[in-house]
Amino acid sequence: MTQDIVILAAGKGSRMKSAFSKVLHKIGGVAMVKRVLTTAKTLPDSQLHLVVGHQGEQVAAECQDFSANVVWQNDPQGTGDALRRVAPFLGKEGSTLTLYGDVPLIRASTLAKMTSLSTPNTLVLLTICLDNPTGYGRIVRNEQGAVTAIVEQKDATESQLAITEVNTGILLAPNVHLQTWLSSLTNNNAQGEYYLTDVIAMAARDGVDIVTVNPENEAEVAGVNDRVQLAALERELQHQQAVHLMQNGATLMDPARVDVRGELTTGCDVVIDVNCVFEGKVVLGDNVHIGPNCHLVNCTIGDNTVIKNNSLIEDSLVAESCDIGPFARLRPGTQLAKKAKIGNFVETKKAIIGEGSKVNHLSYIGDTKMGANVNVGAGTITCNYDGVNKYITQIDDNVFVGSNSSLVAPVHVSQGATIAAGSTITKQVGENQLAFARARQTHKDNWPRPTKK
Amino acid sequence: MTQDIVILAAGKGSRMKSAFSKVLHKIGGVAMVKRVLTTAKTLPDSQLHLVVGHQGEQVAAECQDFSANVVWQNDPQGTGDALRRVAPFLGKEGSTLTLYGDVPLIRASTLAKMTSLSTPNTLVLLTICLDNPTGYGRIVRNEQGAVTAIVEQKDATESQLAITEVNTGILLAPNVHLQTWLSSLTNNNAQGEYYLTDVIAMAARDGVDIVTVNPENEAEVAGVNDRVQLAALERELQHQQAVHLMQNGATLMDPARVDVRGELTTGCDVVIDVNCVFEGKVVLGDNVHIGPNCHLVNCTIGDNTVIKNNSLIEDSLVAESCDIGPFARLRPGTQLAKKAKIGNFVETKKAIIGEGSKVNHLSYIGDTKMGANVNVGAGTITCNYDGVNKYITQIDDNVFVGSNSSLVAPVHVSQGATIAAGSTITKQVGENQLAFARARQTHKDNWPRPTKK
Amino acid sequence: MTQDIVILAAGKGSRMKSAFSKVLHKIGGVAMVKRVLTTAKTLPDSQLHLVVGHQGEQVAAECQDFSANVVWQNDPQGTGDALRRVAPFLGKEGSTLTLYGDVPLIRASTLAKMTSLSTPNTLVLLTICLDNPTGYGRIVRNEQGAVTAIVEQKDATESQLAITEVNTGILLAPNVHLQTWLSSLTNNNAQGEYYLTDVIAMAARDGVDIVTVNPENEAEVAGVNDRVQLAALERELQHQQAVHLMQNGATLMDPARVDVRGELTTGCDVVIDVNCVFEGKVVLGDNVHIGPNCHLVNCTIGDNTVIKNNSLIEDSLVAESCDIGPFARLRPGTQLAKKAKIGNFVETKKAIIGEGSKVNHLSYIGDTKMGANVNVGAGTITCNYDGVNKYITQIDDNVFVGSNSSLVAPVHVSQGATIAAGSTITKQVGENQLAFARARQTHKDNWPRPTKK
Repeated sequence: MTQDIVILAAGKGSRMKSAFSKVLHKIGGVAMVKRVLTTAKTLPDSQLHLVVGHQGEQVAAECQDFSANVVWQNDPQGTGDALRRVAPFLGKEGSTLTLYGDVPLIRASTLAKMTSLSTPNTLVLLTICLDNPTGYGRIVRNEQGAVTAIVEQKDATESQLAITEVNTGILLAPNVHLQTWLSSLTNNNAQGEYYLTDVIAMAARDGVDIVTVNPENEAEVAGVNDRVQLAALERELQHQQAVHLMQNGATLMDPARVDVRGELTTGCDVVIDVNCVFEGKVVLGDNVHIGPNCHLVNCTIGDNTVIKNNSLIEDSLVAESCDIGPFARLRPGTQLAKKAKIGNFVETKKAIIGEGSKVNHLSYIGDTKMGANVNVGAGTITCNYDGVNKYITQIDDNVFVGSNSSLVAPVHVSQGATIAAGSTITKQVGENQLAFARARQTHKDNWPRPTKK
Repeated sequence: MTQDIVILAAGKGSRMKSAFSKVLHKIGGVAMVKRVLTTAKTLPDSQLHLVVGHQGEQVAAECQDFSANVVWQNDPQGTGDALRRVAPFLGKEGSTLTLYGDVPLIRASTLAKMTSLSTPNTLVLLTICLDNPTGYGRIVRNEQGAVTAIVEQKDATESQLAITEVNTGILLAPNVHLQTWLSSLTNNNAQGEYYLTDVIAMAARDGVDIVTVNPENEAEVAGVNDRVQLAALERELQHQQAVHLMQNGATLMDPARVDVRGELTTGCDVVIDVNCVFEGKVVLGDNVHIGPNCHLVNCTIGDNTVIKNNSLIEDSLVAESCDIGPFARLRPGTQLAKKAKIGNFVETKKAIIGEGSKVNHLSYIGDTKMGANVNVGAGTITCNYDGVNKYITQIDDNVFVGSNSSLVAPVHVSQGATIAAGSTITKQVGENQLAFARARQTHKDNWPRPTKK
Repeated sequence: MTQDIVILAAGKGSRMKSAFSKVLHKIGGVAMVKRVLTTAKTLPDSQLHLVVGHQGEQVAAECQDFSANVVWQNDPQGTGDALRRVAPFLGKEGSTLTLYGDVPLIRASTLAKMTSLSTPNTLVLLTICLDNPTGYGRIVRNEQGAVTAIVEQKDATESQLAITEVNTGILLAPNVHLQTWLSSLTNNNAQGEYYLTDVIAMAARDGVDIVTVNPENEAEVAGVNDRVQLAALERELQHQQAVHLMQNGATLMDPARVDVRGELTTGCDVVIDVNCVFEGKVVLGDNVHIGPNCHLVNCTIGDNTVIKNNSLIEDSLVAESCDIGPFARLRPGTQLAKKAKIGNFVETKKAIIGEGSKVNHLSYIGDTKMGANVNVGAGTITCNYDGVNKYITQIDDNVFVGSNSSLVAPVHVSQGATIAAGSTITKQVGENQLAFARARQTHKDNWPRPTKK
């Protein structure tokens, strides 16, 4: 039986003060609505229904990988109104789970617990006990403990106000009843809106069992209405991820100062120093040490590699036992073979660097194929761009490039060659040749120093 | 009627263990005493009186923009003593508000509330209820709720100790009474000091109404006695500022890791990544993205500009849709036209960069006027300094500067010109000319590699 | 009388998920077991006994400076078993203090308090009152307040469960009794282990006085079983150290964002901005200002020196009034005389820089002896390495090195000399000579720009 899952994502979220729909704002590097869809997708046989409205095209586009049934809710009139618009698409049997695009940290385990309790005569409600329930709808139970109603703050009696169990808005209802309930919803209230919550009273009235499930974690049911709440959930997610990394055997010098925006996989005895950021898919091998303030994006780092302070690595493959940084920038297409070394103030781009080769200082190596055991002196530049086209620099094994050299691509420096410091190389250098391209040093005696003008 | 405001700033603050007066230490980039003066100045028709003592010249100098009446309190003998020294300068009518140079986060709204209650027969007292009132003077009220006395910790009865409302030291007294009360103060106490607080009992005795006002925020009345407290208030201010930025529509990746020391204005959908510092007056346009670890000082950044990791920008103007960093340093006098690009390990200073021009790697561009659509190759240096004088480099539109070039100023590269890589340019280059200044490449075969000595 | 101190360090710590013994993991840059040994060593006349097992060689090697008596506990069977193995080495008189290699923040003052209470008829127990004592052995006292037993969680009555005072496992026992007690220990329990705690009941039975001492700080008795706890104690230590620095007169812009892994000494009015890391022995003089994201390792910084953002300094000596950074990297062997300046994107290594000399931009200065008042232009490289050997560059006083110069070592630039920009210098430059080594600038008119291929 298919599980219908409705994700409400039509709201504007005006307290975000944003030109973008609220649900497109990111938590942990992923748009909130995509987080909810990803979690929903973990339920087997699920049919996703995405209710969009404000900036609906953009929301739908962001979520297109999920093949959700996109339902428009222009002129939105509440959560009940949203469900009514989805109603024609719901299964005859089965049940419908309602989630929210701005409640991004709901867990798959919680949803699985809810669906496991689903029957044609059961409404499953996600509730939570709060230290301070003020403002939330209270869960009223009878003496047997069965849920009988949800009472809103403004309608609650003194004793009802003392109830700490509250409604989260997330519920799962049997489709056989839900269609009827939705058609019975009215908007006779101050806001003139249709409230999905009203189906709970209908369920109680119709003798449908109302069972409750609690989330493991309070943040699962926290919604985002402004950027203060957005930041709070961002930190909560980062905290959860940091704990997970530590439990898996990574040392974090400060769990409050690591940001993972995507998927970080760590080997054994990885150490991550303060203030690092990881984006996309990052894999760190055993014994990798990452210094302070590094930023890694979509890259794989081999065992025993050390990445020193303030390095930035994007879309690169780094083998084992490499030595990177500080202040190194590996741009997309960089591949380091084992024991390669990229030092301070060095930028690489589309650069394949062979085993044991070293670019230690103040260099730009772009569009380059470099063999093994090459030593590139400080200040070396591969001139790969003529203003319009990019060209390849090929440097074979065992080459020594003197400092402050310019290699004007396309150019080939053959194996064992030596480039004298300060040379501009424009033609191929043969095997074991010394190439130099510099003027003879001359002197003038008693050179007068400039004076202040 | 003029509002007299007395700011006490004479203390040494020996627990700061500093060579500087306590009130000169900064919170949010501003000396504490200047914060208090700035807040005080928001009250209309105010006359500021600044009481100085320890390092009084420096304190007065720091505050000179406020035109405060500086009153010396050498050999200070308490808060009452301070007020007595100011007494000759107070208005005949009106009232006197007493503030403290080391209580820096008092808010204008709180002061406005106090002054709104002022009458010739009213003393307005700022009080606060604390979870743990230990050590503070308790506010004693009669059955009608009127304040009758302040009882210090050591003099309090058991039931008085249970009072959680305490004196903050900030009070506003009608001048018509204050002069009399001040002259009646005595120093018959263990410390031999004159306490301003004693006027409260006098007010009660004289039938003057004592009304109380509470601050919105506990930090408003927190004083700084050591650097632990200084840091605590720094973080409190930073937290308040971060919340304000988020409420105004900026996304902060971690509100606990942003430091604003001055005034930061953000457009719509600005994103600020972790660990950024802002100093002075910084204006960020719409959709500006600031990467981790950036530091911006007195600069304006146009819409849609992206500033990548670890960039440092001072006294610069950056237009819209620019691309800066990572590891860029824009020094004072840098102006970027739209779509300009300053890349990694690039330093600019007094550099005007035209629309769409790019300085992408490892360059120093100083004292330079650069036109539009210029491409500056990696490793380019403008040699603007002869050891004594600085000279201008002028680079016109559509110039291509090859990598590792040196432009020896004063020098003019005319539009459409090309500089060959590795050239040192000392003379003007004409329009559409190619300039080169490098030696011919030569080779020696079978060059013997150096051996270990 | 010698104080025996036993440090238990045999456990594997499998929840660390590490290839290294748990006690080798670091807190504040020091292996946990070394922290405990260092603290233990502060007790006079102490004889240290280190009980090792898992990775015992490595643990013993890490601790070799302490001359501890290393006792092996292979196949460990509990804390009592560990003590039984040490028993043959304990003094006949005196007492034995038992500590734990994974309880790293115990303070010397607490241990001193314990030993001060030691007598041949006294067992001194370190206990602590916890808000939530769940899981810990409760301290049971009789009506006179004397300790009579420790009851484990699972054996405790309802009223015993309400006791908040718990056993920390740290105790000091008189040797004259301890030998007997240890030999009486049994392993009749679920785990089949010998528990040191059982000696407490024996002490009570034998009429030995049981006195208790409390630590000043809860973290003193916190153990590390996984990396979440490791991180928690790391932050606790960092917090304690930050408070200590502030109380001593350093301003920390954010006490939660400073990491000291070793020993940091600060002069008067030092300011440390956010996110700095200090390792090894670092000494900062008066008025030193350290910008954000700096990392200092084993270095001494003179009075009034300013270190700007993102600088990294290792094994260097910096005199007073120097100006370093931003983005400067001083590698080992760098010595700056006063008023020297090392600017952005500059790397130094084994470089002695004279008074007032400046290396402001994009340079590599290695194996260099530089005199006073030298100006090194942007992009200057000392070519100190021929692929096998390193050579010295000597630059005398008052030299001006033009930008983008290469100095090919070994080379000597004599005092007052000038190097023209863009020169590669391979031979000695005499006093006051101008040296140049560059090609004449030539032009080609109407140079065709490359077109897209």
